[in-house]
Amino acid sequence: MPAFSKEEMLAQTLFVSAPGKVILHGEHAVVHGKAALAVAVNLRTFLKMAPRNDGKVSVELPNVGARLCWETSELQPLVVAFSADQTESQPPSPEQIEKLKEFAGFTNRAAATQSLATLAFLYLYLSIASKCGFMPSVDILVWSELPTGAGLGSSAAYSVCLAGALLSGCRVISYPLEEGQSVGRWPEEELAVINSWAFRGEQVIHGNPSGVDNAVGTRGGALRYQAGKICSLKSVPTLRILLTNTLVPRSTKVLVAGVKDKLMKFPAIMEPVLTSIDAISQECERVLEAMAARPSLEHYPVLEELIDVNQHLLSVVGVGHSSLDQVCQATASHGLHSKLTGAGGGGCAITLLRPDTAPSVVEAAIRDLSDCGFECWETDIGALGICAHSPQSLKAEVLKVFNGK
Amino acid sequence: MPAFSKEEMLAQTLFVSAPGKVILHGEHAVVHGKAALAVAVNLRTFLKMAPRNDGKVSVELPNVGARLCWETSELQPLVVAFSADQTESQPPSPEQIEKLKEFAGFTNRAAATQSLATLAFLYLYLSIASKCGFMPSVDILVWSELPTGAGLGSSAAYSVCLAGALLSGCRVISYPLEEGQSVGRWPEEELAVINSWAFRGEQVIHGNPSGVDNAVGTRGGALRYQAGKICSLKSVPTLRILLTNTLVPRSTKVLVAGVKDKLMKFPAIMEPVLTSIDAISQECERVLEAMAARPSLEHYPVLEELIDVNQHLLSVVGVGHSSLDQVCQATASHGLHSKLTGAGGGGCAITLLRPDTAPSVVEAAIRDLSDCGFECWETDIGALGICAHSPQSLKAEVLKVFNGK
Repeated sequence: MPAFSKEEMLAQTLFVSAPGKVILHGEHAVVHGKAALAVAVNLRTFLKMAPRNDGKVSVELPNVGARLCWETSELQPLVVAFSADQTESQPPSPEQIEKLKEFAGFTNRAAATQSLATLAFLYLYLSIASKCGFMPSVDILVWSELPTGAGLGSSAAYSVCLAGALLSGCRVISYPLEEGQSVGRWPEEELAVINSWAFRGEQVIHGNPSGVDNAVGTRGGALRYQAGKICSLKSVPTLRILLTNTLVPRSTKVLVAGVKDKLMKFPAIMEPVLTSIDAISQECERVLEAMAARPSLEHYPVLEELIDVNQHLLSVVGVGHSSLDQVCQATASHGLHSKLTGAGGGGCAITLLRPDTAPSVVEAAIRDLSDCGFECWETDIGALGICAHSPQSLKAEVLKVFNGK
Repeated sequence: MPAFSKEEMLAQTLFVSAPGKVILHGEHAVVHGKAALAVAVNLRTFLKMAPRNDGKVSVELPNVGARLCWETSELQPLVVAFSADQTESQPPSPEQIEKLKEFAGFTNRAAATQSLATLAFLYLYLSIASKCGFMPSVDILVWSELPTGAGLGSSAAYSVCLAGALLSGCRVISYPLEEGQSVGRWPEEELAVINSWAFRGEQVIHGNPSGVDNAVGTRGGALRYQAGKICSLKSVPTLRILLTNTLVPRSTKVLVAGVKDKLMKFPAIMEPVLTSIDAISQECERVLEAMAARPSLEHYPVLEELIDVNQHLLSVVGVGHSSLDQVCQATASHGLHSKLTGAGGGGCAITLLRPDTAPSVVEAAIRDLSDCGFECWETDIGALGICAHSPQSLKAEVLKVFNGK
């Protein structure tokens, strides 16, 4: 296998980005067979991939403080274990992961974000190299607006960007950015390929992920997830939100177990609560589709009421937290409606903004949330999935990272 | 009919008291056919009735600032309209109420607490006089620990005391206080008579009451109310509580209508919430019966969890209020669990205390609640219903009111 083939490798520098995700409704209920609505949040992970001529592969991940560089010749002996006869739906095998850990010098217990990001890169790089028949020599830089480990799908956005860039760079799929365009999107069938590779990256990082995060990162918009089935919503509006990270650490595992305990202890009380949450997800889906078809301010009071009601129901199942109450109270004092998103017990919350919510109101809310010690971003949900960007179209903050290299 | 008959009138001064009520679980859900648990709260209304020799009837109600006095001869012509051929289950007729208003000089629109209390007294006095065949000449003084108009059953406690005292004084039923006893209780069949008369007093005051408040005031303990049926719980423990009045005014009518609106707007979301609340009432009833049978501290965490869950569910149906959140937060900071009781949207809240909750904790909680501007009482639920008291057994505060006369 040639270390680098000018003929086969895309010569240009690629810029791609993928969004994070938030759960709009249905967190926790989804564990018990109910629907969840996951939406793309426009805090994005950006990847720059530039071809090299020296047979080296470098990866720089400033968010997790990783800077890696290998000779493609070092990586070459590993490729056989990632051979192209695997179907894309096959999960990474324990033997493959073991081999990568050994190569990278990680102990079995190493599960730090940095190590997992490295393993996912190596896995995708070697698998895609095996598939396309050569070892691309590239510089990769990945930088994200998403906080890590906050349940916002940062690992999936990373895997989606890696899959998109490597598959396009190796010409397994197209690179959709045409001359003069600022943003390009892949056709549906290529998104499916990106998604299936990104899922394998997620499997390296998380073991047994649901596939929701990579689907949202790839396709954007919103999707319904229920009983293992993922279904993209046909069309959804873009909604302004505040995303607040209370920075209160929590264990998703402990929270999920707590809900299960309550459900076992008080089934007659808790089952209907899950039924009610399920109905909220359905109602919200209906409203989002109606908004996409006919945008109107009249839908906002309904969305706000669903947010309030679900926040209380999530408190019923025991995943509320005083920090989340603070978010709700602080935003309510500005006429805004908030709920936790994801695991709860701290973590993140979303606050819906209306199209006509005044900047002064948003600023005041952000100030109050910051005064509580929370991190807060103004962003959108229903954002685009993976995109290819012209360098000119990238915002200054991203360009600074990419050029500062 | 003689104005006063020494032979038939009980010669002694009577002291009776009746408790208020709080809804433990099921408020609002009860409007939609679910169960509610109402319990007697040991904030009591006290009545002193002393025979007079001058053919006068006087009523003093210091809580509402009323001081009334009539000649029985003035009242005599009214009696015919309250004749004894009525069964006790017949409600006061509009004509009867009209006659009483005219007599008392109230306009049609007069609905002030004072006027309603006067009308209820006149109604019960005349009806019982008609039944027993003479006009008792008595001094009546009623004083209550219960705030008026706070949904704590103060009007029912008043009607229960009046019915108990007048029926006993006129020897329609016994006076159960035996020589040397400090507290006496009526037998079940006489409680039924008191209750049915107290209900008519409530009808004068409220028009179309449920009958729950007078049943709790008469029988004490706890009862289940569902679809118009009232069922006393066989045995319930006495539980320590804090009762907090946020003093935030609210309209029960508006709150009930708001819940109905939500139910019509989002039936699939709200129906299960009512089902869940119903299951809480059932679970609580089960726990109370288990506690009565075998008192143990182990039941308290369950009662506390039911309180927390129901408080959140009541917020879901839209009857929460920031003042109630304050109560929950202030008491939670002392490890105590609270929920609204009654209509919500302000109004009152209950906080469960354990038998072993330290006085210092209770004092600190009361201090914090008072600092919020709330009124707060430490009391019990599951209290005794209507009682006859020896004067020696009355607490100093009550004696002071009765003797200060």
